[in-house]
Amino acid sequence: MTTALLLIDVQQGFDDAAFWGPRNNPDAEANIKALLQAWQDRRDPVVLVHHDSVKPDSPLRPGQPGNDFKPELAVARPDLVFGKKVNSAFLGDVDLDGWFKTRGITSFVLAGIQTNFCCETTARMGGNLGYDVTFALDATFTFDLEGPDGTTLTAEELSRATATNLHGGGFATVKSTKEILTLDR
Amino acid sequence: MTTALLLIDVQQGFDDAAFWGPRNNPDAEANIKALLQAWQDRRDPVVLVHHDSVKPDSPLRPGQPGNDFKPELAVARPDLVFGKKVNSAFLGDVDLDGWFKTRGITSFVLAGIQTNFCCETTARMGGNLGYDVTFALDATFTFDLEGPDGTTLTAEELSRATATNLHGGGFATVKSTKEILTLDR
Repeated sequence: MTTALLLIDVQQGFDDAAFWGPRNNPDAEANIKALLQAWQDRRDPVVLVHHDSVKPDSPLRPGQPGNDFKPELAVARPDLVFGKKVNSAFLGDVDLDGWFKTRGITSFVLAGIQTNFCCETTARMGGNLGYDVTFALDATFTFDLEGPDGTTLTAEELSRATATNLHGGGFATVKSTKEILTLDR
Repeated sequence: MTTALLLIDVQQGFDDAAFWGPRNNPDAEANIKALLQAWQDRRDPVVLVHHDSVKPDSPLRPGQPGNDFKPELAVARPDLVFGKKVNSAFLGDVDLDGWFKTRGITSFVLAGIQTNFCCETTARMGGNLGYDVTFALDATFTFDLEGPDGTTLTAEELSRATATNLHGGGFATVKSTKEILTLDR
């Protein structure tokens, strides 16, 4: 059974620390690159998604360098590349569910940016659509975030909540990049 | 503009503390009932969703009392009632997105059980589908949950993460029941 690699929003605009604030997991990009290399070595399907923000102040807005993929994806030979304007890759500019179904793909490994937004939302929806989703937690990262009450959760706290919810809710199996690459051999 | 009330999985099976573990927010049911009463007094649309679990050990499995709605919904005169087997109410047994669109409904208030699973997943997907979602945080509750690393997040910690993610990600406006009922007058 073929498992696809779904890389979400691995874009340069997320390097803008002044816009996003403190991040976690500096190893994310290296882990993303290792997953990409493994999938390409086996010639298994690779899907790249980019966020085409419609917010006027977002570094991810199309038409500027922040919309481009990070250098770790320079070697990518993707089977599918598409944009989206919302968090879930299943509600993007192409019918990802249909693309997977046409190819008989029922499982995918998910990594990218941000852990708790586009990655988690896509994992929740993928699990609900019946996919066998593996969430490569250490190949994602996020930023500190202020809640409606004005208090802040750190990127690490948010990452832990994502992992707990995806695991406890049965949306996805949460694994490390090392576990995924070792199991795949 | 009409705003619907979407009440998710307000079912008796969630009373099984031995199955679910410690919960938060004992006021949730009273707040749910207050929202329901306000919506019905104005004859605005009310949608009830129930979870028809396919897990053999779940108290929410159809054909047993746990699948029934809680007593707070006894007075309900819903415009739509349907079941679902996954978390998102937009991936249930009827096409909720189509039902809303047919009626020109572009906004809804969401409450029910559990905060971080069916409520949050439905709010994320509703926001991504373009709805103006209001999340009645104090009219939801959840349970302590173990993560993939074996550590536990409390129901309150999970509730706070849900609120922070929905607010910070722009999926929904997080409000209290009192704020919603005051603003609606």
